[in-house]
Amino acid sequence: MRTVDTIIRKRDGQALERDEIVAFVSGVTSGALPDYQASALLMAIVLRGMTPQETAWLTDAMVHSGIRVDLGDLPGVKVDKHSTGGVGDKTSLILAPIAAACGVPVPMMSGRGLGHTGGTLDKLESIPGFRTALSLDEMRAALQRCGCAMLGQTAQIAPADKKLYALRDVTGTVESIPLISASIMSKKIAEGIDALVLDVKTGSGAFMKTEADSRRLAESLVSIGNASGVRTEAVITDMDMPLGTAVGNALEVIECLEVMKGRGSADLVDCSIELALRMLVLGKVASDRTDAEKKVRHAIASGAALDRFRQIIEGQGGDPRVVDDYSRLPAAPSRFALKAERAGYVSRLDAELVGRASVVLGAGRDRVDDAVDPAVGIVITAKPGTRVDVGDPVLELHYRETAKLDAALALARRSITIADEAPTLRPIIVGEVR
Amino acid sequence: MRTVDTIIRKRDGQALERDEIVAFVSGVTSGALPDYQASALLMAIVLRGMTPQETAWLTDAMVHSGIRVDLGDLPGVKVDKHSTGGVGDKTSLILAPIAAACGVPVPMMSGRGLGHTGGTLDKLESIPGFRTALSLDEMRAALQRCGCAMLGQTAQIAPADKKLYALRDVTGTVESIPLISASIMSKKIAEGIDALVLDVKTGSGAFMKTEADSRRLAESLVSIGNASGVRTEAVITDMDMPLGTAVGNALEVIECLEVMKGRGSADLVDCSIELALRMLVLGKVASDRTDAEKKVRHAIASGAALDRFRQIIEGQGGDPRVVDDYSRLPAAPSRFALKAERAGYVSRLDAELVGRASVVLGAGRDRVDDAVDPAVGIVITAKPGTRVDVGDPVLELHYRETAKLDAALALARRSITIADEAPTLRPIIVGEVR
Repeated sequence: MRTVDTIIRKRDGQALERDEIVAFVSGVTSGALPDYQASALLMAIVLRGMTPQETAWLTDAMVHSGIRVDLGDLPGVKVDKHSTGGVGDKTSLILAPIAAACGVPVPMMSGRGLGHTGGTLDKLESIPGFRTALSLDEMRAALQRCGCAMLGQTAQIAPADKKLYALRDVTGTVESIPLISASIMSKKIAEGIDALVLDVKTGSGAFMKTEADSRRLAESLVSIGNASGVRTEAVITDMDMPLGTAVGNALEVIECLEVMKGRGSADLVDCSIELALRMLVLGKVASDRTDAEKKVRHAIASGAALDRFRQIIEGQGGDPRVVDDYSRLPAAPSRFALKAERAGYVSRLDAELVGRASVVLGAGRDRVDDAVDPAVGIVITAKPGTRVDVGDPVLELHYRETAKLDAALALARRSITIADEAPTLRPIIVGEVR
Repeated sequence: MRTVDTIIRKRDGQALERDEIVAFVSGVTSGALPDYQASALLMAIVLRGMTPQETAWLTDAMVHSGIRVDLGDLPGVKVDKHSTGGVGDKTSLILAPIAAACGVPVPMMSGRGLGHTGGTLDKLESIPGFRTALSLDEMRAALQRCGCAMLGQTAQIAPADKKLYALRDVTGTVESIPLISASIMSKKIAEGIDALVLDVKTGSGAFMKTEADSRRLAESLVSIGNASGVRTEAVITDMDMPLGTAVGNALEVIECLEVMKGRGSADLVDCSIELALRMLVLGKVASDRTDAEKKVRHAIASGAALDRFRQIIEGQGGDPRVVDDYSRLPAAPSRFALKAERAGYVSRLDAELVGRASVVLGAGRDRVDDAVDPAVGIVITAKPGTRVDVGDPVLELHYRETAKLDAALALARRSITIADEAPTLRPIIVGEVR
């Protein structure tokens, strides 16, 4: 079987055989397959698609490019959550402590922010001392110690994905539901979980802009997970506006702590509770959704979740005193209030533009090797639906450099729409796939 | 402008700008553009297509990757002929001497055989001593000396094409009318001609199997040529069966000599005369088709064409005595007659299978660096339409090695169909585009 024949078959719209997909992934992983053949095949996949069967084989081949962690010796149903990425999307920092406090072991491997979307690792690392670069042994120890480990992907997990992603990034072959699905699910399946809750974002700040595309992606992800023995369900959630009120690493950590203290904005609380209760049901520590929601709310009200977060922080080298003393977190030296230029209702706050403004301030990165500033970001002081008068603050930009503030303001201003009528906002939970 | 944005635009079906196409071609030529980006863009072009304007820009950029020869100081309208490739397609060796004998300067750059199709250079080189690797100065001298030069493409001609073709060959991106058109026409435009007659083959032994595809390719080629100041017209000719009766290098030289001596099979004679008379009209040495055909037939009948071929051979280092003494050409040591297994009419002789059988005997090559055996090949003793009895020879295989004969016979047997009814054969000239 020659690689060029595989490329031609996919170019002509045929489904690939399992051994063709295995040869492709192993060739990419070993470096034996020339990049120019890999990229031609990737482009053919983007434009011709893959069947669910092909996508499952691709995922499986990517899982087997590295090790599939076996956590079978640890008690409990191991559950993770994965989000397809959004702006102000910080629920991992809330869910992991809640689920762990409720008895669900959470081996959570996360990523870094890229483009206008943030990443869990960047947020955690804004806590002084917090180490996310755990080895698999350290992950296991953390799970035994406090029922939760929050770490970056290790080099043993789906190494094919890293190589493929680097190639896709420079060849215009990122936008493909089969390729995205295999990338996400190979890493999740390899980390050793029994069940997975997916948060598939939809809207202007999400990778998938339309509900229909988000649903297609969710269906693809759920189908792969279940076929691989990982019980998987997906919630489709709104990302037309940022989630919650903070965008930026330390700012988002504070907001998460607020939620665990029983406060926080309704959309973030609702999204977190929905995802957490699903983790509890999948983790078999609650009999049904009602029971699960009761346990989740109790973990918050009792302080058990917050307490578990302190343990997680301390166990991974961080300073747990941040939980009670936000001044121990990095803070930007300056703030600028962006005010309403007219009276009315905030009818729209474009998530992508807020995210890009936050990146410009230094909170995110355009390239994978850029550094982030943990202190800067944006606080939303008037969420869509809020009535404002002229001069009322809508966004508060936390900045370090004036030049960056100016560039960020240009984007931030465009993100705000104020109208005479109160907007009709869709609920945070848009749908589910299971 | 980032290359990845160009790739994404083409992936999403948009037309590229001229500067994007120029950057692509110059990046390929210099090596500055990574192959993996070039191949992703090529695959997107194969699947999304190119407009006539994009194809013209691509061709122009490829022409300017090297030099465009200027033959303006030589008198006359310089005319070449190019065929898209077929089996037994030997007309170049007939046309060049005829056109030159009639006063049309013919600077003819040709290629080698690849796959089941033969190449003019291989055929010429079966003439002992014949040199096809002329420099541009030698080409010019040959044109001045005998009005004709028959040579391979020099390194200065469209170097981008060589690099692009090598990449297309291994990435499944050969099959694209815009890419094929730009490849063919960039080389023809660069060689310094004023006019071009294209022979676009159609049928089982052609690259384009259907008349509709052949017409689309012909239209694309003609449009590019005329837009570049090269008066171009195309004839679409049949390639369901091999052209003429010989397939294989020295065997085809003999057949060409026979045509120039006033003999030869009707399809080859008709095809050659049609192409030659168009060269004369475009070359402005004949007032119309009728006048041109008269001049072409006279060049054959008078021996002027044959005489001109002797001069061409001698001028390029070959032995002109082959014209009158075929025993000076390489000959295979053995022959095998493949006989009719039933009585009836030869209703079909599959060109691709005959071509592949000939390659197996050693007359052609599967890879660009394979050597060819000038002596071996296949002679058709019963063309489609011929009535045969059991045991009548249909094909005569000229071979050197028994093992190769056996493999070739398996293909050759499959190429022959004998039916009770006489077949309805389409005329050799299927259509034209001008």
